[in-house]
Amino acid sequence: MSAIPDPVLLVLERYAAAVRAKDVAAYVALYDADLHVFDLWSDWSLRGLAAWRDMTAGWFSSLGSEYVVVGIDDACSSVSGELALGHAFLTYTAFSAEGKQLRWLTNRITVALRRNGEGWTIIHQHTSAPVDHVSGKAMLQRLP
Amino acid sequence: MSAIPDPVLLVLERYAAAVRAKDVAAYVALYDADLHVFDLWSDWSLRGLAAWRDMTAGWFSSLGSEYVVVGIDDACSSVSGELALGHAFLTYTAFSAEGKQLRWLTNRITVALRRNGEGWTIIHQHTSAPVDHVSGKAMLQRLP
Repeated sequence: MSAIPDPVLLVLERYAAAVRAKDVAAYVALYDADLHVFDLWSDWSLRGLAAWRDMTAGWFSSLGSEYVVVGIDDACSSVSGELALGHAFLTYTAFSAEGKQLRWLTNRITVALRRNGEGWTIIHQHTSAPVDHVSGKAMLQRLP
Repeated sequence: MSAIPDPVLLVLERYAAAVRAKDVAAYVALYDADLHVFDLWSDWSLRGLAAWRDMTAGWFSSLGSEYVVVGIDDACSSVSGELALGHAFLTYTAFSAEGKQLRWLTNRITVALRRNGEGWTIIHQHTSAPVDHVSGKAMLQRLP
């Protein structure tokens, strides 16, 4: 994989902007109609935009007056023809309406993009955190 | 993503055969020299074939006389030019040397492949299990 970040980094930057704005429509617009997701939380898989829109709306509304800043680290991408593949670490930091840092966690994200007219949409997204062998718990904080 | 399983299914079938045979060389031959892995267990990421060979040798030797059968479910793939992208559920079932079933767990796997001469090698692999919101534990058994 090369370190050239486009179009994966562009999609991740739009993802971060949509999360920061809690903009469900802008978030969902990043995804393909036939999306398959392996999400960090709760479900083995999720398919299609309707289910993803519901998940997103629930997440953003659960934040109340808080907001979330997404940091992107170690992004890599590969592009060939109609497909792009990328992975990165995403750190989600929640702030109060007054700008006080409340909590944070890190995910590993893999995305597959398909060229869609002039742009690209996410056809597959896989997020996770590594699991501790002894406790069986997800390690949600990646320390330098 | 289409349901057409090639070349992703071919690689996953070779993966299963290498695990069943505990054949480190056959397993490592599936991967690219500049491999990036987001593995289910312990580490946030792993890069390069030497680290991956060590992980594999440790896993296979830890099995002693046991062996592991990998089942592949819901495999999907997309191919464009030099890149292929696939995802599936892999169920790992351990058996004693006498063929008695001992334990099992399921992973979600995403793989990105790059065309490499006549064949394909894995440049990125991401394995995980979903995390329970309340306990923070990985849900390692996917029930129908």
